[in-house]
Parts: sequence; C-alpha cells; structure tokens
Amino acid sequence: MACCGNCFCCQCCCREGETRTPEELTILGEIRDEEDEILPRKDYEKARKYEAIRWMMMFAIGVTVGLVGLFVDFFVHLFTKIKFTVVGDSVEKCSDKGCLPLSLLELLAFNMTFIFIASVLVLIEPVAAGSGIPEIKSYLNGVKIPGIVRLRTFLCKAAGVLFSVAGGLFVGKEGPMIHSGAIVGAGLPQFESITFKRIKFDFPYFRSDRDKRDFVSAGAAAGVAAAFGAPIGGMLFSLEEGSSFWNQALTWKVLFCSMSATFTLNFFRSGINFSKWGSFQLPGLLNFGEFKCPDGDTNCHLWTAVDLAFFVLMGVVGGLLGALFNCMNRKLAKYRIRHIHPKAKFIRVLESLLVSMVTTVVIFAASILLGECRDLSSPTTHNTTLSGSEDINSTIRRFFCTNKTYNDMATLFFNPQEAAIHQLFHQDGTFSPMTLSVFFLLYFLLACWTYGVSVPSGLFVPSLLCGAAFGRLVSNILKVKLGMDIYSGTFALIGAAAFLGGVVRMTISLTVILIESTNEITYGLPIMITLMVAKWTGDFFNKGIYDIHIQLRGVPLLEWETEIEMDKLTASDIMEPNLTYVYPHTRVQSLVSILRTTVYHAFPVVTENRQNEQDFMKGNILVSNNIHFKKSSVMSRAGEQRRRCQSMKSYPSSELRNVCDEQNAAVEPAEEGEDLLQQMLERRYAPYPNLYPDQSPSEEWTMEERFRPLTFHGLILRSQLVNLLIRGVCYAENQSSATQPRLSYAEMTEDYPRYPDIHDLDLTLLNPRMIVDVTPYMNSCPYTVSPNTRISQVFNLFRTMGLRHLPVVNAVGEIVGIITRHNLTQEFLVAKLRQHYITI
Amino acid sequence: MACCGNCFCCQCCCREGETRTPEELTILGEIRDEEDEILPRKDYEKARKYEAIRWMMMFAIGVTVGLVGLFVDFFVHLFTKIKFTVVGDSVEKCSDKGCLPLSLLELLAFNMTFIFIASVLVLIEPVAAGSGIPEIKSYLNGVKIPGIVRLRTFLCKAAGVLFSVAGGLFVGKEGPMIHSGAIVGAGLPQFESITFKRIKFDFPYFRSDRDKRDFVSAGAAAGVAAAFGAPIGGMLFSLEEGSSFWNQALTWKVLFCSMSATFTLNFFRSGINFSKWGSFQLPGLLNFGEFKCPDGDTNCHLWTAVDLAFFVLMGVVGGLLGALFNCMNRKLAKYRIRHIHPKAKFIRVLESLLVSMVTTVVIFAASILLGECRDLSSPTTHNTTLSGSEDINSTIRRFFCTNKTYNDMATLFFNPQEAAIHQLFHQDGTFSPMTLSVFFLLYFLLACWTYGVSVPSGLFVPSLLCGAAFGRLVSNILKVKLGMDIYSGTFALIGAAAFLGGVVRMTISLTVILIESTNEITYGLPIMITLMVAKWTGDFFNKGIYDIHIQLRGVPLLEWETEIEMDKLTASDIMEPNLTYVYPHTRVQSLVSILRTTVYHAFPVVTENRQNEQDFMKGNILVSNNIHFKKSSVMSRAGEQRRRCQSMKSYPSSELRNVCDEQNAAVEPAEEGEDLLQQMLERRYAPYPNLYPDQSPSEEWTMEERFRPLTFHGLILRSQLVNLLIRGVCYAENQSSATQPRLSYAEMTEDYPRYPDIHDLDLTLLNPRMIVDVTPYMNSCPYTVSPNTRISQVFNLFRTMGLRHLPVVNAVGEIVGIITRHNLTQEFLVAKLRQHYITI
Repeated sequence: MACCGNCFCCQCCCREGETRTPEELTILGEIRDEEDEILPRKDYEKARKYEAIRWMMMFAIGVTVGLVGLFVDFFVHLFTKIKFTVVGDSVEKCSDKGCLPLSLLELLAFNMTFIFIASVLVLIEPVAAGSGIPEIKSYLNGVKIPGIVRLRTFLCKAAGVLFSVAGGLFVGKEGPMIHSGAIVGAGLPQFESITFKRIKFDFPYFRSDRDKRDFVSAGAAAGVAAAFGAPIGGMLFSLEEGSSFWNQALTWKVLFCSMSATFTLNFFRSGINFSKWGSFQLPGLLNFGEFKCPDGDTNCHLWTAVDLAFFVLMGVVGGLLGALFNCMNRKLAKYRIRHIHPKAKFIRVLESLLVSMVTTVVIFAASILLGECRDLSSPTTHNTTLSGSEDINSTIRRFFCTNKTYNDMATLFFNPQEAAIHQLFHQDGTFSPMTLSVFFLLYFLLACWTYGVSVPSGLFVPSLLCGAAFGRLVSNILKVKLGMDIYSGTFALIGAAAFLGGVVRMTISLTVILIESTNEITYGLPIMITLMVAKWTGDFFNKGIYDIHIQLRGVPLLEWETEIEMDKLTASDIMEPNLTYVYPHTRVQSLVSILRTTVYHAFPVVTENRQNEQDFMKGNILVSNNIHFKKSSVMSRAGEQRRRCQSMKSYPSSELRNVCDEQNAAVEPAEEGEDLLQQMLERRYAPYPNLYPDQSPSEEWTMEERFRPLTFHGLILRSQLVNLLIRGVCYAENQSSATQPRLSYAEMTEDYPRYPDIHDLDLTLLNPRMIVDVTPYMNSCPYTVSPNTRISQVFNLFRTMGLRHLPVVNAVGEIVGIITRHNLTQEFLVAKLRQHYITI
Repeated sequence: MACCGNCFCCQCCCREGETRTPEELTILGEIRDEEDEILPRKDYEKARKYEAIRWMMMFAIGVTVGLVGLFVDFFVHLFTKIKFTVVGDSVEKCSDKGCLPLSLLELLAFNMTFIFIASVLVLIEPVAAGSGIPEIKSYLNGVKIPGIVRLRTFLCKAAGVLFSVAGGLFVGKEGPMIHSGAIVGAGLPQFESITFKRIKFDFPYFRSDRDKRDFVSAGAAAGVAAAFGAPIGGMLFSLEEGSSFWNQALTWKVLFCSMSATFTLNFFRSGINFSKWGSFQLPGLLNFGEFKCPDGDTNCHLWTAVDLAFFVLMGVVGGLLGALFNCMNRKLAKYRIRHIHPKAKFIRVLESLLVSMVTTVVIFAASILLGECRDLSSPTTHNTTLSGSEDINSTIRRFFCTNKTYNDMATLFFNPQEAAIHQLFHQDGTFSPMTLSVFFLLYFLLACWTYGVSVPSGLFVPSLLCGAAFGRLVSNILKVKLGMDIYSGTFALIGAAAFLGGVVRMTISLTVILIESTNEITYGLPIMITLMVAKWTGDFFNKGIYDIHIQLRGVPLLEWETEIEMDKLTASDIMEPNLTYVYPHTRVQSLVSILRTTVYHAFPVVTENRQNEQDFMKGNILVSNNIHFKKSSVMSRAGEQRRRCQSMKSYPSSELRNVCDEQNAAVEPAEEGEDLLQQMLERRYAPYPNLYPDQSPSEEWTMEERFRPLTFHGLILRSQLVNLLIRGVCYAENQSSATQPRLSYAEMTEDYPRYPDIHDLDLTLLNPRMIVDVTPYMNSCPYTVSPNTRISQVFNLFRTMGLRHLPVVNAVGEIVGIITRHNLTQEFLVAKLRQHYITI
C-alpha cells in the first residue's frame, strides 16, 4: 500500500515563493508538501486491521455528515418558518391596514440579521465563503488551499450556510453541505485538530495524504448524498471530481459512506418529522417529490418520444443561459477581486448586507405588486404527492387574493426555495407566463449577484429554481398556447436540469443526482440528453462556474486530459532543467544551505559521473561513500542472473533451476560486475571542479558546471530532509554511515500534516561538518519518463498516479529535468506550444 | 490520444507456445498481440470528427443492443406462452382424465426440442456457451479469448439463449445479453466481419485495441442496461469489470450508450405490449415490479431499522449458500473439463438434453405432487403492482386446487422465472414454508448443475429466484410464526440479493443494478449491506463464480491490486531477465530468425555498450548506423539547455529569455555534447565477440554474452516487425537509412485485428542482407521501472496504464529485464514470494 511513488496524495503548488501572507495563500495554494514516500514503512501485518478501521471510519463519516445535514436542515426550517409566519401574518394584517412598509421592515430585520451573522462567520474564516465546491475540486485534484479542511472552516461553513439560507438570500445549502462533508472526512479520521489544540487523541492511523484524500472524497460524496438523497450520485460526484483512476475498493467504501449519510439523515428526519422512528421516508434535504400521473388517468404520461425534441431545444437554451450566467458572474468575481477584496474586510460584510437588502426588497415588492391571482386547481388531482411531506397546497400564498385563488408570484418568492421548486414541479394550477418570466429574470440576476458574496452559498438550488421557472414557462406556452398534451412537471424538471447543467457543466454525477432526486428511473434519458446538450452548448462559450472560480483563484488544476495538439511537445520541452539536487551523502551545512535558499519541495538525489573518482576514494569519506552508493545502486543483468542462479541452488524445487544450469558454468569471479562499474565510473573527463562539494551549488558556476551529467538515484522531499536534520540523523566524518541513527515510519510521519520548517531549525544544535545519508529515506524508485515522451503520456502518468514530481531521465540514466504540476497546467502548455510553433 | 505506451488495449497471453488447436486457444487465450503504438499517427485534426463519430457509434450500439434484447424477449415470451398454454391446458384436462403422463411428454417434447436447438448452436460456436460474463471480464481485463467478439458467436449466443430460456432450463438471459451487447460493441464500429467476409465497408476508424475495448465496455454496459433496465448499473458494471482508471469522457459515453439501450427497449416494448408508442413504461427485461405499501395503510413500511439486523443475518446465510453453490459448481466444472470436454462434441448435447429432461420431470412432478393449495389473498390488496405489466394474479397456477385457492409449488415452477420472482416479491398470499424449502433445494441443485452445460445460460435470474425463495421463507417464519410486522416482498428481495451476492460477489454495480431494478432508492442501504455481508462471508471460502470459471480456463487475469505482502518483492525479483532483443538497425535475416524462433510479442530495441565501437564505425554501415542512433538518442541537460537558449533567441517575447542570459556566455562549441557521448561510448572493454552481429542471438553464447549490458531505447512489437518485413521496409547496405520507405499509420494498422504471421512471409521475396531501421516504428518512450521498484507500484502502473510489456531499466539506462502480464499473475507472484522466503 505504502508504495513509493504511487501515493495519490495531494500536491501543493511547487516552486512558489516563500511569502506566505494569508491572502496570497488563499489564492496561490499552500506551499507545504507531504511525503511522497518514506522508507520505514507500516507493518504489512497491520493492513487488515487498517482495513477494518477504514470501514468503521467510513461509517462514522457518513453518520456525522448525515447529522450535520440534519442540524442545518432543522435550523433552516425553524428560522424560515418563524420568519415567514411572522412576516406573512403581518402582511395579511397590513393588506387591510396599509402598513405594508412595516412588514417589509420586519422582513428586512430578519434577513439582514441572519446575513450579518453569516457574513461575520465568514470573516472569521474567509475560505468558508462560497459553495466550497471549487475548493473541494481543487483539493481532490491535488492542490491544497490552506485551511480548507480545518475544523474552524467547518464550523463557520455549517453555521454560516444555515443563516445565509434562512436569511432569504438566493443561495442553496447543497454546496456548503458537500464542503462540510469533505471537512468531516478529512478531520474525523485524524482525531486531532489544529483549531482546537486540545482535541488530540492517540490515533496514529491514516497519517498520509493518500488516506486523507480518500476520506475527503468519501466525505464529499456523503455530503452530496445527504444533500440530495443521492448516494450513487454522491459516489459518482467524488469519482468525477476527484478520481484519477478507478479504485474498486475505495469506490465501494465511498458508496457505503454515502449510503450511511443518506440513511442517517433519512432516519432522523423521518423520526423527527413524522415520529416514525425506524422507518425511512425522507431521503435527502432536497427532494423533488414524486412525479406521478393521476391514478385514474391512463392517457397521462410523464413524457413521450416527441417531448424529447423540446428537451433538446431546452437544453440549448439552458446552455446559453448558463453561459450568460457564468460570464456575468465571472465579470463580477473579477471586479470583486480587484476592488472589494483588497479593501477592509467589513466592506465585504456591507456588500452581503446590500445584497440581502436588495433581495428582500425585490422579493417583497414583486410579491405584493407583480403577482397575479390564479385559480387553485381542484384539490382532488394532487394531494398525494411530495412522498409524505407537506401537502403542495400548504405552501401556497394568497396575498390579496380571494379564497379560491392564489398569488402566483408570492407563492414562488415568499417561500423557502425548496417549496417554490415543489410548486413549479407539482402545482397543477398554472403560473402566468408573465409571472414566470419576471420571476426568472429577477432570480437570474439576483442569484448571479449573490454567488461570490462572502457568505456560504450554494448554487444548486437557485439554479434549479431558476431553471424550473424557465421550464414551467415553456410548458405553459406549449400546453396552454399550443394545446399540447404534456406533463408540466416534467418540463419544469427538464428546465431545471438544463439551466443547472448550463451553469455547473457537470455530467455523469449530475445526471445521476437528478435521477435519484426524482426517484424515477424513467427520467434518465431526458435528463441525460438535456444535460449533454446544455453542457455542449455552454462549453462553446465558457467553462463551468466552478472551473471559472478555480481559474480566478489561480489554482493550477490539472484537466482530465491534454488537448491532442499538445502531443507536438515532448517531456523535454516542458520540463524544468534547472535543478537543485542533493547527493546521497551530503554535509549538514550543504543541506541547510539548500533548504534555506530554495523553495522546492523535492530534490533529486544524484551522483556525478567523473573519471577521477578513484583518486578521491581514499581520502574523503564523503566522496567515498557517495561513490560506493553509486556502485551498489546499479544492477546489471549479469549480476541479477547470477543472484538468481545462486538463490536457485538453495531452492529445493527444481522447477526453475534448469534455466541456470548452462550458465553456472560460465560464472566468472564476482568482481566482474564491480569492474564493469569501475569502468563505467571512469568514463568521463573532469571539466568541473566540484566532486561532491561541501558547498551547495554556487552562483558562480558556469553553464557546464550547472548542467553537468548527473546519474539519477531517487527523490527526497523537503519535509523529509528537515525531519532528518531536526532529529539529528547524521554521522561523523570518521565513522561509517551505518552509525547514523535510523528513523521509524512513525517518527517520520509524526508531524503530519504540518512538518517543521527549515527556519524553525536551531542551527546551533547542528554540527555542520556531519554527513547525512539520505538513501534510506529517499524514494529510490519514482516513476520517470524519458525526454522524448509525448505530453499526453506524461500527463496521463502524472495525473493518474497522483504524482508531484516526475523526473525526466535520459537513455543512460542521467536526470535532465523535472516535471511538476506547474509544467502541466493548461497555461504553461499553451505558452510552450506557442513557443514551439515560433521556433519551428 | 494515440500516445505511446498508454494504450488501454488488450493484452494477449504472451510467451505461450505457438500450438493453436482450437480447444487450447479457448482455454489459454489467444496468442496474437495488437500494436502498442505505431509511430505514424492519426492526424490531430481528425480528432474532432472522430469524437462525433464515436458518439454516434455509442448511440448505434445502444439502439442495437436494445433491439437484440427486444428480439430475445419477444421470442422467449412467445415460445414460453405457447408452451405453458398447451401444457397447462393439457394438465387441466388430464387432472380429470388421469392422462398426466401425456402432459409430461408434451412438456418434455417442447423443452428438449428447444434445448437441442440451443445446444447445437453452441456446437457451432463453443464460446457461446455459458453466461459470457467471465469471457467479457477477461476481455476487459486485457486477455482475449479467441472468437469471443465474433459475429458468429453473437448469432449463436442470441439465438441460443432464446431457446435455452424457452426450454425451461434454470438459466437466465441476462448474462448472454451482456455478452451479446459486448459483441455488438466490438463489431458494429468495425463495419466488417470475419464470419461473413462480404460485410466489409470502408470505415477506417477505431482500428485499435483501445477503441475496440472502449466500445466493448460500452456494449457490455448496454447489455446490462437492457437486461435490467439499469443504465447507471450498466455503466458501473463496465467500470467495475473493465476499467483500470477513471476516464470521464468514456464513462459519459458509456452512460449514454446504456441509456440508449434501456430506452430503445422501453420504447418498443411499451409500443408492442400496450400499443402506447412513444411512452416509456417497461424499462428492462427483468423488472422487479413496484414495491409499495397498500395505499390506505399508514402503518405499513417497506423496511425499518430493526429489519436491518435480519438483513445482515440473511447476508451471512446468502454468502454461505453462495459459497456452497460456487464450490459445487467448481467441482462440476472440473469434472466436465476432465471427462466431458475431451470426448466427442455430441456428448455435450446429450448432457444438455439430460439436464433438460431431469429439470422438466422435476418441475412437472413437483408441481403435481408437492404443491399445497393456498388461499388467494383478497384481490383488493395488490392489483396495481407490476407497474403496468400483467396483473400478479394472472400468473397464478390453480392445478387441482379449487377456485379460491392456488397451487403454490406450481405457481413457482410452472411459470417463467420472471413471473415466479414477481410472485415471491409481490404475492400477498403466502407460500407454505414446506413448498419454499423444497423449491429452494430443488432449484439450487438444478441451477448448480445447469450452469456450465453447453447452452447459453445466465445465472442472475436463477440466483435471484433461488434467493427470493429463501428470503420469502425467512419472511414467512418471521411474519407467520413470530408475528412480526414486516413486508414480505422486502425480505424476498433481500434474500435474492443475498444469494446473488454470495454467488457472483459483485459489489458496486450489483448494488446499483438491484436498486435500479426495484426503482426504489430507499432500498439502497439494505441491499448494499446485504451484498457487503454476503460478499465478505463468501470470500472467506472461495471466489465468485465468474472468477472461478476464469481461473479454470487458465486466463491470466490481473486482480485489482496485489496483496500487501507482495511488496516484499521488487521488480527485479519477478522480471524475465532472458531477453530476445533487436538492434535499431538489424538485418532482415536476423529479424526473420528472431521472429521464427521466438514467440514473444514485443522486443526491446537496444544498443550495446562497447569501447571499440569507434573502430567499427568506418567499415560497416550497420554498426555505424546503430552507433549513430545511440549517440543521437541520448539527450543531456547541457544540450537541452543550449537548445532552449538558442530557441529563446528567436523567440520574440523576453519573458523566458533572462534565464539563459548568463549561460549564453558559457556556451561552448556544439561538439561538446558529441564528445561526451563519444567518451561515454568508450567506457567498456570488450569481452564479447559480437558487436551488432549479423546473426540472431546464438545458442552457444556464454552467460557473459547473454547478459551483457544493453542500453534500452524502445520497444517494438512482433506485428510491427512482420509488417515492416512484408511491406519491404528496409535499405541496402551501401545506402543511407533515409532511403528506407516510410509507412503511414493507415498502412501499419490496415490488417487490424489480424496481423499477418511471420510464417506467412514469403522468404524468397526478401533480401536477407538488407537492413531494417526499426527506430521510426518503435515505441521510444514506453513506461519503465527501476529494478528495485516494489510490486505494488509495478502492478499499479501495469494495470492502470493497460500495459503489456514493462521494461525494467537500471540507473544507467541498461535494460535488465521485462515484465509481462504473466509475471504479475497471482500464481507467479505467490511462487516468487515462496522462493523469496526460502532464500532469505
């Protein structure tokens, strides 16, 4: 498991400057790096125990995420109910007395208080703003944004979303739920917290980036599962956003975690809402209700093959609207970054309050002034919907309308968003086209303004509501104006899917989430086709909203695959040839100097290729040890064959022995291998002055010195080197390297995830003349590529194996460069390709 | 896309003997190998066109698979209906007249005729036998079994399964549907057939193993989708069985393909069965009906938290029963391989007929003799189930029972299996515990005997039915004996899931398939927990039935991951150090000799490391070209840096230029790189006689010669070498290698998937003294590993990247061995580990 190089851990932005102001870090990504691999490994025997604990952890994460969902849902419901009851009553009263401004003030007071609280929570932890999906996507892609999986972020996010939703902003709680789930996944298995130092148990499992990443993806999946009641969708979400390769065992655990979350939530909500403890009737926080034909009506059908044509058209329109939304939001976000973020933090709070105020006034005014009174549909047709939750007619608003009619605009605006979605999906009473158009327009603009304000804010529910209004509008036109026999709910659903698809551009997971939310497998094809068309249409103009925000943050995200054109480049075109390296045996002073003067996260371990090494061997233990290491590290075919044949002799079975019989005769004295190596080592003249110098690479080197041939032996991480120095792992010049103390795996990972910095090191405790043997701790077998490997192959290896540093090694084993995440980002590749075209 | 090395193509069993009797091939897997990569590549510009065609192909595959499902379903229904009507009428009549043996003979005549036809179809194409899932699993894992995706197989399978199901055997049509789907996927995009030579269009797309494999997985997914009405389950099935890494674009296409299949089938079945063209009411061939509480009953719940405990217990029992089933079936399969397969083929037909006869007699006798007359439940409770298909009570059998009662055994046995499953899931009238026990026992034994008989035979439906009987038995005991308030249908479903899970041991996909088949998301948790427990219990004893059959066929399947213990081994422990290699420039006679005397599928391209190369350079063009190639293939850091700096000068922007400024001063004459290489080439003495010999590697070599150091430059495939020879790609000794004709990508892949054999080559047309330059065609940048890489890492790379040959290269670029699929099979690793323990 803990095998070198294939850690699917997160990679930080490598080669960034060391300036760590909190603002910059949020933009650029964290600088720290975790271990690629450490030689002293976990016991093999513990593997089974680990596996069992892992399953338990998955269950615990699922249950916790479910409970978080329950908590958020409960309080949102409570606050919203109080708010709408108080204000609704006031409106009813005031419609006679004419004291409507008072009602508006009441509503404003409620909303702005809530938003103020949400906004202040975000001030405490700025990364709690927004939906969190871009951050989780970055994390799963391998880029850490600092603080993103902290307990403090979790608390601010979960409490903040509660208030921002209750505060009547056009935001959803689904994105923040997913983020919260991911934090639970990251934090729970660690049994300690950085926010609250007192939380610290002795639970030394899962102290690696790979494990943490697995749990984060499970937690995110559980978040989706809790938010939408869609465990399969959750699993696919974490696969789609986070996976580089299909890991059956992990996927199975993720599904289990999602299921746990869904059913924990279901269990408690069924218990609390219906006092039916033990039954499972309310799957997710967001639930589309049951799409169903009236029982007696045999001619009714949810959709027909003819409708598909309209769905495709709606997909196109949804894609266009989504692209427009994204474009506007992008402009807005850029404006915010340029003009609001640099200013004092309370400006952000003011912006939130402004948005809240405008939204509230719009809601209120539209409800009062723009609504039409529509006939209520006969109560017989639709009273068994909503799968056991409240009746659809209970959320109707009658503002100023007589008893048998309702105010359609108020019904949409003056309700929780979920209720409005239900109205659009299931209310047989039609909404007027005018109302739907105005609602759509206002909602579209306000939602676009809201996303990016510094409160926790999801985007799913606003998009769904907006799209549902659009869909309902289409159905209205088709049904009423053209007299077609269609089911309006389906059109509203498809409209919602089209707009949501146009905004977020997710594919597989969104399809499955929507199918699961409707609990109706027969909607599979229309939903999928709509999403496909919406995505393609939207992709024609810009990226999905999450990708836009990731891009604005400057996160070096790796795409799914490179463009096919990039294959005109090779690894040597994009690699970084300027290397800072260490030798297998290096003096403490060199290490300190390298660590202090560079910001790289990994260093290749190399030896030089020199002819006169023989002369140095006698005098200098440092040089001699390095040369010895180089010799012993090269394995030859002949040597391996000899070893096999010798082990064969001691092997009782003869099944493999005959291979060697003829060759045993030819075995020459064992020094031959050594001789060959000796010869190999002598193959070069020595134009460079430094053979395993005591100093770190010097500024005054000529190009020949800087780029002299170096045989590659492995990679060692900054954190490992610092750890070795801090723990005094070194030996004196006159001793053998075997006297160097050895660290265990636990000691190497003890400080995870925050390894000490080189600047924390007390230099007075170190003897600069001591020598560190890094070979037991380096990753001696990272994946490498040859210089003429094409980009698609490099990219594939890098992304699939979750690498952070990919050495480029030529045909004779010399390192010629190193490839990191930054060398593979779209921007870098495009720049290199442009250069390639120009030079050709 | 077409990048070297990361082809996710199929790998054939490498290093097998050349003896290709049809029988052996079926067991051992096909010998041929497809290209890893060919240098002349597809145009980049065509990529978009390809993408569009690929989507269309996916749609076409989905529709075709849906139509195949429709065809099979229609005729199975027709034949079964005729059979049961005729025999049922006869029984009704005979129950008075006492002519029951006549009815039995009628039934026997029907069944044995059908089975005879199915059996003869399998004789025509032996790989059409069985469920096909093991074969598809092997194919997607990378091992081809010959004929498995041929049109002939498809015809035999689709027609055969129709007759074997109609013939009343305890077999399902789901496995064969999946296999048929996979064949459609493999064949349709090729637009040509080997079975029918006349089918050959000019459609030169998708002529690679990678494309074919993608389409096969889409086709298999479509098969699942059509069989179970489970498009998401289908997608997950193809991921679970076939994927090594998460490819978002492909997965999205596979889902689309599955959706197309489900909805094509749905469209036509809704149209044909209800004349409701354009509506979609009958999702899959197998459909579990609607689990639903009676409308008025508010206390009814499908399952509660308390039931979960029973589900876990049922999972354990299901796992045990499944393990028993697999164990018995394994013994039987071994017996068949040893005693039946070597004999004349008609013996297999006789066995099928015997099974059919016994099954028929058992069905008949049990129905007549062992049934109990049970009260029909009141018709009000359950007549809206089955989501629009026939009423549940229409499939009740009344044999010898009075009007208000029914014969429970006959209802289960004397019906199509789907109807029996519906009865167990939804019939409120109880079945007696005695009947259920007897039914379960008989069914278990007969199904176990049947699976492996040479007719197309699925295992899903029999397992589900068997398990449903078990579940219903449990619910019977709990409800009637203990008086618990439970929903019997849920217990029947969970029993079915438990037994099916115990037999096939699938995880994610099976969970989703069952959830989708019930169309009830709330069953997610119980189904998942049951399947988990069943799998774990069963895995304690043996493998899943498909894996058992794969193992019996001797297919070198790669598991998901290696055991953690294997990490005690390194790449050098498992690699094959005895290499047959070619030089960059080789004489035709050497190539022919190598190709004729070995069976390897790929050859490393190497150069030798010798000191006295300089002396040879002048006289011999062959040696000189090889040495030139070696020199030009090594890229140094200094050379690369110089190249970059020079290209920087011609680059208008200055953003990257400053890097080079200081170094430009230090640039030395360009020969320096050459010099270094020259020196490098001279580094060894020459203990071996052959420097780029004209002969192929000789038998009389000493070990030192055999295992002398060789610098690795790339891999070339057997098929490519043969292709080069056949097309006369070579140059004369006194000419430059540039005179060698160049082949295009189309020419290299023209013969896909059946490349010519070396023995087809007419040697008289070749000039043995000509030289072939393989460098433009070799894969010059395959993934490589270092000798001390641990197994898990090697395995991961190999499996994830879909490799077939993984060269092991040491720190100085010399090849020390090669790893193929056989070196990574469980058996090989275990043997090596044992040896490792012994020698330590």
